[in-house]
Amino acid sequence: MARIVQKFGGTSVADVDRIRNVANKVAAEVRAGHQVAVVVSAMAGQTNGLVKHCTEISPIHDAREYDVVVAAGEQITSGLLALALQKIGIPARSWLGWQLPVRTDGTHGKARILGIETAEIERRMDQGEVAVVAGFQGIAEGDHRITTLGRGGSDTSAVALAAALDAERCDIYTDVDGVYTTDPRIVAKARKLERITYEEMLELASQGAKVLQTRSVEMAMNHRVRVQVLSSFDERPGSDLPGTLVVDEDEIVEQEIVSGIAYSRDEAKITLVRVPDRPGIAASIFGPLAEAAINVDMIVQNVSDDGKTTDLTFTVGKADLDRARHVIEAAEHDLRYQRLVADGDVVKVSVIGVGMRSHAGVAQRMFRALADKGINILVISTSEIKVSVLIAEEYAELALRALHTAYGLDRA
Amino acid sequence: MARIVQKFGGTSVADVDRIRNVANKVAAEVRAGHQVAVVVSAMAGQTNGLVKHCTEISPIHDAREYDVVVAAGEQITSGLLALALQKIGIPARSWLGWQLPVRTDGTHGKARILGIETAEIERRMDQGEVAVVAGFQGIAEGDHRITTLGRGGSDTSAVALAAALDAERCDIYTDVDGVYTTDPRIVAKARKLERITYEEMLELASQGAKVLQTRSVEMAMNHRVRVQVLSSFDERPGSDLPGTLVVDEDEIVEQEIVSGIAYSRDEAKITLVRVPDRPGIAASIFGPLAEAAINVDMIVQNVSDDGKTTDLTFTVGKADLDRARHVIEAAEHDLRYQRLVADGDVVKVSVIGVGMRSHAGVAQRMFRALADKGINILVISTSEIKVSVLIAEEYAELALRALHTAYGLDRA
Repeated sequence: MARIVQKFGGTSVADVDRIRNVANKVAAEVRAGHQVAVVVSAMAGQTNGLVKHCTEISPIHDAREYDVVVAAGEQITSGLLALALQKIGIPARSWLGWQLPVRTDGTHGKARILGIETAEIERRMDQGEVAVVAGFQGIAEGDHRITTLGRGGSDTSAVALAAALDAERCDIYTDVDGVYTTDPRIVAKARKLERITYEEMLELASQGAKVLQTRSVEMAMNHRVRVQVLSSFDERPGSDLPGTLVVDEDEIVEQEIVSGIAYSRDEAKITLVRVPDRPGIAASIFGPLAEAAINVDMIVQNVSDDGKTTDLTFTVGKADLDRARHVIEAAEHDLRYQRLVADGDVVKVSVIGVGMRSHAGVAQRMFRALADKGINILVISTSEIKVSVLIAEEYAELALRALHTAYGLDRA
Repeated sequence: MARIVQKFGGTSVADVDRIRNVANKVAAEVRAGHQVAVVVSAMAGQTNGLVKHCTEISPIHDAREYDVVVAAGEQITSGLLALALQKIGIPARSWLGWQLPVRTDGTHGKARILGIETAEIERRMDQGEVAVVAGFQGIAEGDHRITTLGRGGSDTSAVALAAALDAERCDIYTDVDGVYTTDPRIVAKARKLERITYEEMLELASQGAKVLQTRSVEMAMNHRVRVQVLSSFDERPGSDLPGTLVVDEDEIVEQEIVSGIAYSRDEAKITLVRVPDRPGIAASIFGPLAEAAINVDMIVQNVSDDGKTTDLTFTVGKADLDRARHVIEAAEHDLRYQRLVADGDVVKVSVIGVGMRSHAGVAQRMFRALADKGINILVISTSEIKVSVLIAEEYAELALRALHTAYGLDRA
């Protein structure tokens, strides 16, 4: 007997038939003798619809009321799944964020989980009852109002619950059957990974792979929760499914140098041409951006030609491009740059692998592969287990395929 | 300055545009210097959709989970209206049933309100904040889970809140502009009533008029809450609208004998032919029905022809007809009736007026008017301020028009 957390995303609970299908998957684990807690997302499309209502009423809105509105989606699914489980003879009860409670900080709209009370559901799980927990939501410490965890937050709910329950495994059911070396819709030869390390998954998620929410991976890594990514449309029970396990590095015997290649089209590039090359200039550019809550990702500053001015390039989220531009233009008088060049038609491609730590030449191989295809690199940034480049968006597919081959990831 | 509760039904908040329109109506009262609490229903169609999901999963379901699912509708509207109010500069905050809290008994699916905590919203209303309360929902005393008040329950939420706040008025905004002498879709000469007594409104609601939930009128009567029914599609502010006021009898100077005529197609008739005419036979028929939670409305027992057997006719809700039939047939051996005749094609027509108390011949006028049109009366039942008859459904419109004229209710 093991304790398992299962999480089902929006496409897995998109209608009543699929909710019935999910109930069967839960029942299979219960009948195998496991104690099960289930975390559910909103039915596919529902959250988008609710967000749209909020935005139509007010583009900039009170995040506390936004949370009240969008949390309703997971509430509905939790009740429906509890009904579907009861219908097939599995004792079950729904739990909303404020009921467990899932305590969070007060950052409405993208709150962080502080703790989950599990005493009562553990007592009931011991008696064979399935806890159906509404994902994505909690209750704020300060104002006791509903909070939500940001898009994809149900993954984080599931991992946090698995950590709190000290669960043997957290199965994330989704519309893909695992984590791939890269997006199989673009690279036909992409391979499904049997295992991947927390560190790599974290980089993949934060560099654009949409399979898991970044925060959920961070939390899994911190609490050493074994996460399995698998398909909710496969008929076999979870323990028989060849999903992808996200685990500790020492659980992986043969480590590839590069495990995966991620890409993100959500980037935009801003270049400030001929900025005065003096101390403090970077601070006076990025200070106002930080104040406006605009995240800056890659930054590159050219070596000064004349010793007096330099060109500064950085990237922001595509959705923030207009705002970033306004912030910079408002500070033009202080910054005294000659020209601002904005470019939204870029894509960030990242190769990721813990093997890089012990292997040289990984970045070089990337630059070579891209050069061979005539792809110009606009910005480069690296971390211990990742090399990212910014390139023109039109080369995205070509670059992904070239890099996939160059690192020997192609399926035989 | 007065304290006002406004309630907006599902058609009034059916989409984002209408929610904006509602915000303007609330703002008008705030700008007139009033303290306002607003109670909202779910967006039109949403509750039906959620109920359908529950029923598809399981026709007979755990009412506690049903409540979790359907309460989401009002939650969404409360957040959206708070956003719409903030957008036009009116301080506002949403309140869910469990947040105020609205304490109810544990009868999930049709809970009764036990009390509403208003100290915090009163403090905020004093500071000019509008309380946007999700209607239809509360939290159960025992299990601390979400409860709902039954269909139309937001009316009851509004009246209970008005009572708790000692509000000057409870304005119920709906898709009609008041209470009519009868259904204006059937009787073109129906008149809107300026005022109606609690007692009459209660009979109208319980005899089929859908304008207010019966329980809300009961509660208004018990707590002497002045209720105004008005249209949410009229552009004028609430205090200028000629809606219908539901008030105490002594507030009505010239009382008509009959104020309104209601009808209900939700009835079905069962006749047990040749039931043994012995003491206790009624108990042995209606006992099992009560145990099955089937409400019996009208009952008539014919005088026995032969002194040994009699015919017994009664009505149940149309939705309960099949179940009632099974309950009776299961007890056939005890009851020893000769034949069971069920008829769903009936309508109950009721004339209602507090003036009946002091006027004779009201029922006689009804029987005469129906006889003149050749309409056969199947069952009769009366109360102090009401006469109801059951007739064949095909005569419904004809009967309504004939009675409307006979009691002098036609608009000039």
